[in-house]
Amino acid sequence: MKKIILFVLFMTAAVSAQEPKPTPPLYSEQTLTDLRNIQQAALGSDYAYRQTAYLSNNIGPRLTGSPQAQRAVEYVAAELRKLGLEVRLQELKVPHWVRGEERGELVEYEGMAAGTTQKVVLAALGGSIATPADGLTAEIVVVNSFDELNALPKGAVEGKIVLFNYKFDREMQASGFGGAAYGQAVQYRFGGAVAAARLGAAAVLVRSAGGSQNRLVHTGAMGYADGVKKIPAAAVTYEDAETIAYLAKMGKVRIKMKITPQTLEDAVSYNVIGDLKGSEKPDEVVVVGGHLDSWDLGTGALDDAAGVAVSMQVAYLLKQLNLRPKRTIRVIAFMNEENGGVGGRTYGQEQEANAMKHFAAIESDLGASHPLGFYFTGKPEALAFLAPISKVLGSQGAGLSQLQPGGVGADIGPLTQKGVPSFAPWFNQQTYFNYHHTAADTLDKVNPRKLAENGSLMAVLAYGLANLEQPLPR
Amino acid sequence: MKKIILFVLFMTAAVSAQEPKPTPPLYSEQTLTDLRNIQQAALGSDYAYRQTAYLSNNIGPRLTGSPQAQRAVEYVAAELRKLGLEVRLQELKVPHWVRGEERGELVEYEGMAAGTTQKVVLAALGGSIATPADGLTAEIVVVNSFDELNALPKGAVEGKIVLFNYKFDREMQASGFGGAAYGQAVQYRFGGAVAAARLGAAAVLVRSAGGSQNRLVHTGAMGYADGVKKIPAAAVTYEDAETIAYLAKMGKVRIKMKITPQTLEDAVSYNVIGDLKGSEKPDEVVVVGGHLDSWDLGTGALDDAAGVAVSMQVAYLLKQLNLRPKRTIRVIAFMNEENGGVGGRTYGQEQEANAMKHFAAIESDLGASHPLGFYFTGKPEALAFLAPISKVLGSQGAGLSQLQPGGVGADIGPLTQKGVPSFAPWFNQQTYFNYHHTAADTLDKVNPRKLAENGSLMAVLAYGLANLEQPLPR
Repeated sequence: MKKIILFVLFMTAAVSAQEPKPTPPLYSEQTLTDLRNIQQAALGSDYAYRQTAYLSNNIGPRLTGSPQAQRAVEYVAAELRKLGLEVRLQELKVPHWVRGEERGELVEYEGMAAGTTQKVVLAALGGSIATPADGLTAEIVVVNSFDELNALPKGAVEGKIVLFNYKFDREMQASGFGGAAYGQAVQYRFGGAVAAARLGAAAVLVRSAGGSQNRLVHTGAMGYADGVKKIPAAAVTYEDAETIAYLAKMGKVRIKMKITPQTLEDAVSYNVIGDLKGSEKPDEVVVVGGHLDSWDLGTGALDDAAGVAVSMQVAYLLKQLNLRPKRTIRVIAFMNEENGGVGGRTYGQEQEANAMKHFAAIESDLGASHPLGFYFTGKPEALAFLAPISKVLGSQGAGLSQLQPGGVGADIGPLTQKGVPSFAPWFNQQTYFNYHHTAADTLDKVNPRKLAENGSLMAVLAYGLANLEQPLPR
Repeated sequence: MKKIILFVLFMTAAVSAQEPKPTPPLYSEQTLTDLRNIQQAALGSDYAYRQTAYLSNNIGPRLTGSPQAQRAVEYVAAELRKLGLEVRLQELKVPHWVRGEERGELVEYEGMAAGTTQKVVLAALGGSIATPADGLTAEIVVVNSFDELNALPKGAVEGKIVLFNYKFDREMQASGFGGAAYGQAVQYRFGGAVAAARLGAAAVLVRSAGGSQNRLVHTGAMGYADGVKKIPAAAVTYEDAETIAYLAKMGKVRIKMKITPQTLEDAVSYNVIGDLKGSEKPDEVVVVGGHLDSWDLGTGALDDAAGVAVSMQVAYLLKQLNLRPKRTIRVIAFMNEENGGVGGRTYGQEQEANAMKHFAAIESDLGASHPLGFYFTGKPEALAFLAPISKVLGSQGAGLSQLQPGGVGADIGPLTQKGVPSFAPWFNQQTYFNYHHTAADTLDKVNPRKLAENGSLMAVLAYGLANLEQPLPR
């Protein structure tokens, strides 16, 4: 990931040198006035906060396939209809994984008091199979990386439980690059089971892929591979990983772990899609969205009720200000971003032939910290066309922009791959991964002021793109 | 508590004005040299860290009456014997409370998706009775204070569950006065059940008395009163309290809670007492101690393995440097500080007639942050006798001292009340109450360098007091 960041900086520098001069006018005077009005209204509005609160607190965790996810679909559709949007539900066939009981305890280690065990805080990873009903007891082998695992002697992990103890880079996060730190750590969560199973392990534990140091376990999707035995996979907290690693240096450590998740029949669910039709080019679309599903340990306030709420607020503000965009603004609350990506993929497939009519796509799925500006995937020369938007956003401290060659959001990824200019808020990611996918992703982590700032960014960007007087280079 | 702090500052100012000039010499030149050598050895030693690690990780949670608490007694006694101390186990009859299952879920609230509930993270408070075996389901009444509870209409909480939603003062903690913030909040944890039961409540929930915002529940002792019905008492996390308060503003909120703790027969346990006999006044004693028991959710690394470990290290360092104090230094690992205080009380009773022979007592039970110096309960004029010790400690940034009229430690409290000059490390308490009594009180929270600084403070203070050439005013 470090290489990617350096590449980004290099690209940015390269752009400055070759920046084209777009022919004015890019935005009408009226549009620029409208953008400033939208910004003021957004910064003064608590609409997005109230929606985030309702999704998090009144509906609760919204794991794909759950009754809460269905309630969220119905709720958001109804709210968007109230705002006068043309709403449709796009039907999806989604995976339906449910968490069960989970328990871990160390049953053998140096110094253990007779008749006791020591609790291990763990959580099944999304998609994992269950352990046997009465649990699985085996020795733990601690490795810090895939390389360490593969360097072990033949047979070293056979029938044992591998703990991937890769340390999330908190310094990198503190510097604002939480996403990069996450990118490094998450490969163990996703790929750990396959790597361990190839060598005959009975199960896999993964140190939480996040910055928390509060005995908080981080769940998230994991994967299996064809031809490789499926083994149970769970995350343990930072603290438990540290304790196990300490004890393993002193002698044999055995754990009894029990997880009882189930993968049920695929379920029917929906993307919620609401159109605010454009006045001049209604067949050209600016997508603005977040995802409606969440992990089940917390209430998914940051991930991603906040993203859905600020997307809804784009429509709310335009209605409030009685503004109609020139191109269509399409609010999408995607389903199943977390454990399958069915919503984003299905929308992308449906719109494949229509990609050129997607003028731009914006996705907010990295929380609700202070936005510094936006990330952008597309032709570098497009940035010059957006300078007037960044100028408006500069007055709220969100005037930066940065190229991200790899894409900016999972749900709009299929559009990005078809060449649709793609955007996401550029957040200060200094704390997001302390809460992401944990039981502490709750409403109190959403700062109303910062959420309003993001609401403003989304609305100004969406309306600006919808009213751009020229096509964007793509 | 604010009043107490102002009082302390006033007292400190008053002292400066009336400070007596003690007649030199207070400490021999050799003692002053020894103190500097002890300090250097302490700052370079990892003994206390290794002991903290063993108590936390290898033995684990040490709730009074548990096998782990007994293992800790045996372990510390053996370690002190290895150091050449005269060790005895002081027998105690201790309460024996054990945690059981615990589960909470909201079963009715505005907007709830049909067929779902929402999880509440809770933990039984120490000493609480159980709910009925199949749980207790009732409406929640949220109050922010005792005053709010008592201002409710007659019958308002009858048969219901009171949630005390008193907000821990994180600003006060951030300013270094975590203990004062805790003092305000903890009265609800301790006294909430009685206050609610008097008005006919069926159970009580208390917002966690700590600074954590990581879905971490804070346990701790609670009390019942004669003549008032005992009702089940549990703490909920900051997040859950916020969510319940939000939902209660919208309508009826009902919870199903189940806790199954048990109070067993009193158990036999021990204070571990090790004497390093004085060379000149062996019958005069300087006590240095911490407590061996811990809460059961975490591993009690900060509370109070660290305090026991730095006390043990006092003896270790003196043995390492081949130093014998003039007065006896008595290392005590107290039992049952957390839920009964039997250890401190029993030692105090045993030594009641001998209080005058206790030259001083030091207790470390507020974690292991950077020590700024020491707190002191005793005659203000005694501080002048300690100035040379503070001068030595000043070189490690621990040269401050502050009067605390109310006492400085629970276990040495009975000695303090008999007039024994009493000391505790003065910690920067900016983070301690984020972890205290939670599952996140684990070894990683102990910074080895800061623990070594505290080990130095304890050893320099203990040896200095043991070698003071004059009696301390008392």
